[in-house]
Amino acid sequence: MSSPHLPELLELLRFPSVSTQSEKQSDMLDCARWLAEKLLGAGLQAEVFSTPGHPVVVARNDHVPGRKTVLIYGHYDVQPVDPIHEWSTPPFDPQIRDGIIYARGATDNKGQIYAHICGVIDTLKEEGALPVNLIFLIEGEEEIGSPNLPEFLRQHRERLKCDVVAISDTGMLGPGVPTFTYALRGIAALEVRVQGPSVDLHSGIYGGGVVNPATVAARIAGALHDSQWRVAIPHFYDSVSPLQEWEREAWAQNSTTEKELLRTSGASMLDGEAGYSSLERIWARPTAEVNGIGGGYQGEGTKTVLPKEAFLKLTFRLVPNQKPAEILALTESFIRQFEVPGVKLEIKAGHSGSPYLMDPHSPFGLAAQRALAKSFGQPAKLIREGGSIPIVETFKEILGVDTLLLGLALPDCRAHAPDENFPVANFDAGIQLNRALLKELAQ
Amino acid sequence: MSSPHLPELLELLRFPSVSTQSEKQSDMLDCARWLAEKLLGAGLQAEVFSTPGHPVVVARNDHVPGRKTVLIYGHYDVQPVDPIHEWSTPPFDPQIRDGIIYARGATDNKGQIYAHICGVIDTLKEEGALPVNLIFLIEGEEEIGSPNLPEFLRQHRERLKCDVVAISDTGMLGPGVPTFTYALRGIAALEVRVQGPSVDLHSGIYGGGVVNPATVAARIAGALHDSQWRVAIPHFYDSVSPLQEWEREAWAQNSTTEKELLRTSGASMLDGEAGYSSLERIWARPTAEVNGIGGGYQGEGTKTVLPKEAFLKLTFRLVPNQKPAEILALTESFIRQFEVPGVKLEIKAGHSGSPYLMDPHSPFGLAAQRALAKSFGQPAKLIREGGSIPIVETFKEILGVDTLLLGLALPDCRAHAPDENFPVANFDAGIQLNRALLKELAQ
Repeated sequence: MSSPHLPELLELLRFPSVSTQSEKQSDMLDCARWLAEKLLGAGLQAEVFSTPGHPVVVARNDHVPGRKTVLIYGHYDVQPVDPIHEWSTPPFDPQIRDGIIYARGATDNKGQIYAHICGVIDTLKEEGALPVNLIFLIEGEEEIGSPNLPEFLRQHRERLKCDVVAISDTGMLGPGVPTFTYALRGIAALEVRVQGPSVDLHSGIYGGGVVNPATVAARIAGALHDSQWRVAIPHFYDSVSPLQEWEREAWAQNSTTEKELLRTSGASMLDGEAGYSSLERIWARPTAEVNGIGGGYQGEGTKTVLPKEAFLKLTFRLVPNQKPAEILALTESFIRQFEVPGVKLEIKAGHSGSPYLMDPHSPFGLAAQRALAKSFGQPAKLIREGGSIPIVETFKEILGVDTLLLGLALPDCRAHAPDENFPVANFDAGIQLNRALLKELAQ
Repeated sequence: MSSPHLPELLELLRFPSVSTQSEKQSDMLDCARWLAEKLLGAGLQAEVFSTPGHPVVVARNDHVPGRKTVLIYGHYDVQPVDPIHEWSTPPFDPQIRDGIIYARGATDNKGQIYAHICGVIDTLKEEGALPVNLIFLIEGEEEIGSPNLPEFLRQHRERLKCDVVAISDTGMLGPGVPTFTYALRGIAALEVRVQGPSVDLHSGIYGGGVVNPATVAARIAGALHDSQWRVAIPHFYDSVSPLQEWEREAWAQNSTTEKELLRTSGASMLDGEAGYSSLERIWARPTAEVNGIGGGYQGEGTKTVLPKEAFLKLTFRLVPNQKPAEILALTESFIRQFEVPGVKLEIKAGHSGSPYLMDPHSPFGLAAQRALAKSFGQPAKLIREGGSIPIVETFKEILGVDTLLLGLALPDCRAHAPDENFPVANFDAGIQLNRALLKELAQ
């Protein structure tokens, strides 16, 4: 039986809150206000704070001295929707088919953060009070690397003081399998523009005599890995912590996730860095990824053009103890080698976030695992995750606390892709998880 | 004083006759009909022939036995207009600024073929008859490699029988410098699609474990040349005829064209295959060019996506005696090496055309040079050209005749690029050239 809060979640999913697109600014504000109203309606204090970027929503109950203070973090911004024509139904017109909600943001992160909000609404309604001091912190810039949240945390350090942070924005090993994530990869983004001639040229009239920027961009992207899919940037692996033996052994038992990765990706086979399993590659090894490459004619047919420019959009996933700034510097030096006569390279660092690792056997870690076990009826699995939530490392640095990652995303949730989805069952389980978690953390 | 025919040329330039875009089909037909009407109005017989692709316009005067028969070829189709935002004025709304006509197709090829038509109109009006048997053959698929013209030539071989072909679709060394082109590069086009996962993937959740198609596409494009800008495909140069010593010596005197190439390209410097000058690289050496590369996120900002596919659009410019089919086969073998586990390559050959070389000292060659000298008041320069007019080789093969290339395109005509342009003076000179040419060829 699904939660009576489901229609509200669908309402939330209708906001086209794409943080990377500047034309969506008023949608972002509308979405933040909608959340604040729901939190106010539940009986919390709630406020929308403006930032130099998109607003942050903060809510809290009346804090009682001596109780544990828990900060629940989430984000209301979502990824862009393109390729838009590959969606079965429009990304901002949520549809439920066979018990699964399809919409941009369904899993990442509106479905998950709104489950926490509903847990709190239900507890307050049924029990009149929460067992802990609670803070909700819901931002609108997670998908662009939370550029303004660190400063926000510093400015509001007192107001946001807490004992632990909880986030549901990570994955589950499978439907019904409670999963506790104790490590995340970091990220560093870099954009490269290769500038050649001042206009697109006729490839007959100039071809052979003018250096082609698309070729140079391709050389860079093509040189990022060696033939064994190891990242070829010198010193890239220097500060990587090796995997622990217990992790490699535990993950080696997990053939289901590897099969799920193959199935959900639709790739003909999984492959990557030599010497590691797929789970190790994704959870505990760093990457260099081409997120976008472009230059020259993109339309139907042939256009015999020598393009004036080309671009690369790269991100690097980092693991402990790689530092984003160091990796970006190494990468920039590596890429500069490709700046041959006739082209100019513009290299621009984007957002970044450090990798994160916590002790899953700490008291809060164990409490989180108990709450997961209670909500799903089986022991929680311990995993790392390949994604990045840079803010987790920032919470550690600025608020001095660990973050509990209790994700509800399924392997085929298609986060960041067309037909992103979230089962109604996970929404319901998320509501139960919130209630169990606050009780366990209160002890 | 400019020709009274100028307003008609502007009318012709208003047709958005982009042959590569399927939605332009009716514009193509309208444009062909407009030309046929003008030719009829001049007193020629004219017909629009349909083909499996875009229509062909054929016109002729009454042929008199014993006279030379000259076929003047041109094309009414144009290149796509993107990037559209870089045009100073709309591509299909021709504007004259400082004596220069700006429009897509102004130089390539509407301005030039219409100058020939006007020469014939004026001769017929003033002299009542032409000195030769004339055939106009104006097609609508030159920019996509004339896929249907060879079959058309075969079908209408008798009707199109002639002694020589004349085309104005090549370049002049500079304003007022009559230029006779005796060789063209051929072309071979190839499109590569790299298919990976079945959907775009989150680069955190899958990155490192799934092969990235954009990386594979980049590897291919990045490997097409060695560090000296030589094409790295094995056996690519095997059948290339070396440059003649007299050509290298004559071209070495021409520093103007090299300077013009640098200026008009806007590149910071010219560079290319080691061991050759820029003119040699462009006029007489083969190339491998990336006309388009794309994959993953193309918009503003960052999207942490592992794209499901990527593509390359390649063309190769060929020189005597390279054969397009051979080059395509060598290239396909070369590219297949990059088909690593986890991705599939789809390789599709596009249009192609053989390179062309004629004897500039043949009687027709000398007549053409006299006509050029007469129209411009100075001796014609002898050059090769880097562009491709595949149909020239086809005329040789099917009609058994040479083609005279008397181009009117200036180095900064921006053919295939935004702000394509054609001076009114060249339009007027083209009209004179047509009249002189028919007289010289008649002798």
